[in-house]
Amino acid sequence: MQFQERLERIRPFQVMGLVERAQTLEREGRDVIHMEIGEPDFPCPEPILRAGQQALAARSLRYTGSTGLPALREAIANHYQRSFGVDLDPNRIIVTPGASGALLLASALLVGPGDRVLMADPNYPCNRHFMALMGGEVDSVPVGPGSNWQLDADLMAQHWRPDTRLAMLATPSNPTGHVLSTEALSGVADAVAARNGTLLVDEIYQGLSWEVAPETVLNVAPQALVVNSFSKYFGMTGWRLGWLVAPDEAIEPLTRLAQNIFLAPSTPAQHAALAAFEPECRDELERRRQVLGERRDALLRALEPLGLAPSVPPQGAFYLWLDISRYSHDSRAFCARLLEEESVAITPGSDFAVAGGEHHVRIAFTTDVERLEAGVARLARFIARQAVS
Amino acid sequence: MQFQERLERIRPFQVMGLVERAQTLEREGRDVIHMEIGEPDFPCPEPILRAGQQALAARSLRYTGSTGLPALREAIANHYQRSFGVDLDPNRIIVTPGASGALLLASALLVGPGDRVLMADPNYPCNRHFMALMGGEVDSVPVGPGSNWQLDADLMAQHWRPDTRLAMLATPSNPTGHVLSTEALSGVADAVAARNGTLLVDEIYQGLSWEVAPETVLNVAPQALVVNSFSKYFGMTGWRLGWLVAPDEAIEPLTRLAQNIFLAPSTPAQHAALAAFEPECRDELERRRQVLGERRDALLRALEPLGLAPSVPPQGAFYLWLDISRYSHDSRAFCARLLEEESVAITPGSDFAVAGGEHHVRIAFTTDVERLEAGVARLARFIARQAVS
Repeated sequence: MQFQERLERIRPFQVMGLVERAQTLEREGRDVIHMEIGEPDFPCPEPILRAGQQALAARSLRYTGSTGLPALREAIANHYQRSFGVDLDPNRIIVTPGASGALLLASALLVGPGDRVLMADPNYPCNRHFMALMGGEVDSVPVGPGSNWQLDADLMAQHWRPDTRLAMLATPSNPTGHVLSTEALSGVADAVAARNGTLLVDEIYQGLSWEVAPETVLNVAPQALVVNSFSKYFGMTGWRLGWLVAPDEAIEPLTRLAQNIFLAPSTPAQHAALAAFEPECRDELERRRQVLGERRDALLRALEPLGLAPSVPPQGAFYLWLDISRYSHDSRAFCARLLEEESVAITPGSDFAVAGGEHHVRIAFTTDVERLEAGVARLARFIARQAVS
Repeated sequence: MQFQERLERIRPFQVMGLVERAQTLEREGRDVIHMEIGEPDFPCPEPILRAGQQALAARSLRYTGSTGLPALREAIANHYQRSFGVDLDPNRIIVTPGASGALLLASALLVGPGDRVLMADPNYPCNRHFMALMGGEVDSVPVGPGSNWQLDADLMAQHWRPDTRLAMLATPSNPTGHVLSTEALSGVADAVAARNGTLLVDEIYQGLSWEVAPETVLNVAPQALVVNSFSKYFGMTGWRLGWLVAPDEAIEPLTRLAQNIFLAPSTPAQHAALAAFEPECRDELERRRQVLGERRDALLRALEPLGLAPSVPPQGAFYLWLDISRYSHDSRAFCARLLEEESVAITPGSDFAVAGGEHHVRIAFTTDVERLEAGVARLARFIARQAVS
C-alpha cells in the first residue's frame, strides 16, 4: 500500500513515546511527576459538568447544525463583547470539533500546493502539520528572545515571499507562554495586510494570562482568522470543542467545508459549553487562573538556583520554555534520562522547534506546587549527578 | 481574501436549504413531515446514555490517547469477532470523531493531487468531497439497477485508469439501501487488488439490514480500509464517534495523522460507546432494527399505488432511492414544491448523483409508520394536483 508523501512531513510528537514510557514506569510502581502534559490537573468545572449532565438527561443528543448551536455561537459572541469589547456577529463564529477542527477548516480554506506559510520556530507542532496536510510549505522562522519568540513586522518583511499567503501567530504562545501586546499584534497584522496576506492567530490559551490583560487580534485586525478552544481556559479538554472566527466572506465556504468534513460538532459538548460563560463558571475559571499563576511563580523560584530561567517572561498558557544548553545539547536524550533516572516527565524542545530544539525543553505547570517543587528537586539531583559523572 | 480552488469542488448539501425552509415553515405553525433526514427519531439508547452519565459523574473527561480508549478498541474488535467471525487486532482500529474523522484519515493517507478515485454515482456526497479536499480526482461511475447501484468487477475493469489508486464502496448504500453480498464484495475486492489499488468501504449503516445477514468486507479483503460509525446502528448521532479499520502497515502513519489533526476523539462519547456492545443495548438495537424494517415495508406499500418503487430491493440503511421521472425531471424543484405545498420534506437526488439525480429522490424512513403514511398521502395529493394542472 502506497501512502501519500504528505505523511512524511507529518512527524509524531516525540513526547508521546515519553508519555507511554512514563505510563509503563507507573504501572511498575514508580511515582512519575508529570510536567510534560498540556492538560491541567483541574477537573472539568462543575457548572459545565452539570450542563452536560442536563443535556444527557434531556436526551439532547441529536445532530446540531454544522456550524454549531445558535445559542452557543451567541454566547461566544457575547464573551468577545464582555471580555474584549469586540462586537462580533455570531454568524462569524463556527463551532468546531476541538481547536483542531478550526485549524483544519482554516488551513483547508487558505492553503494549498505551492502556498507558503510563515510561522515562528518554536511553535505548536500540529500547526505546521495542518499546512503540510493541505500541501502548503511552512517557512519556520527562527525566533528568539529578541522578538519575544514571536514573529514581528521586521521578520515578516524579511521572510515574506511572493508565494507566501498566510502568517500564523500564537498568543499566549505554546511553548514560550509569551503574550503579544496590542501594539505587537497590530504591527504584525499591518505587515501581513500590506502584503495582501492573511493572518491566522491561535488564541487557544486566551484567558490564561497574568501580568497582561487578555487580548484578541480581532480588536486590531477584524479580518484575521482566529482559532480558539474550550479545552484550556475553560477546562474542557476531553470534550473536544473549539471555534473559528472568520471574516464574513469566508463563512459560506467554511460552512460548506464543515458540513462535509465534520457534519457537526459534538452535541453534548456544545450543551455543556453553554455553561462556560455563566457567572458561576467564570468565577471558578478566574480562581484557576490565579492558581496557575501561583504555580508558575513557584516553578520559576524553584528553577532559579539551577540557572534555568525563561529568557522572556512567561505571561500566559501554562508552560516554561527553557534553554538547557548549560546541561545538554540533546534535549531528547536529556528528557529520556530524566524520566528513567528520576521519574520526571518534561517535553524535549525538538517537538516544538525545527532549530534550537535540541537545547530547549518545555516544562508544564499543570500539576500542583508541591509536585512541581518535588519535580525540580529531582531535576536538580539529576543535574548534579551529571556534573559529577 | 483568496480561497483555495478545492472549495469550488466542495458543494453544499442542497437538502440543507430545504431543512432550513422546513424549520421556517414549522416556526410559522406548519406540521412538516420529515422524510429527508439521515437520523432516526429514536432517542440515544438508555444503556449508552447511562454510561455517558456515569463517565460525567466520574469526571472521566480528560484527553484519551489519539487512537481511542484501549477498552473501546477491544470492544469493537470483539464485536467483529461476535458479529462477523472476523479476528481483528484491536491495534488495527482507530477511534475517530465520527465516521467523518475516519474518512478524513483514510483520504489523507491515500489520496493526493493527481490520484483518481472510483466511486459509484449516486453516492453519499461527502465521500467525493473528502477526496477533493485532499486534491484527488473522483471518477463518479454512473450505475443503475443492472449492478444494484454499486460498482462491480466489470465496472472496475472499464473505469480503472493508470492513476486510479482507490475504489470506494458503501454497503449498506446511502442512498439506495443496497447491501452487497459476500460474493459481490469479494469480486470487487479482487478486481481492485488485481490492479494494485486500495479498497475503502463505507460500512456506516452496518447492522441496519433485513433480508440479508450483516457482512463486512474484512471477511473477504482483510487489507481493505473500513469506515464505520456509532451514529446509525448504535443511535449515537450527536456524540460524533466512529472508527477506521486499516491494515497493520497503515496504523503508524494513521496514528501520526490522528495525533496531529484530532489530538483525540471525544472522551465522554467513548465512555458512552463502551455500553453499545453490552447485551442489554444489543437487544434494544435489534428491536430498533426490526422497527425500521416495518417502517420500510409500510413505506413501500404506501408508495406502490403511486408507481413509486425502488428498482432494487432496499435491504439496509433507512432510505429509498426512487425514480420520479414519471412526475418530474427536476427533483430539486419537485422537492421544493412538495415542501411548500404539502409540508413534506424529502431529499432531491441531485445531492447524491452527478448523473440522473434530477429524476430521483431519496426518502428516509426515520419517522414512525403513521407519519410516513401521512407523508405519502400528502405526496399523492401533490402528484394528483400536478397531473390535473
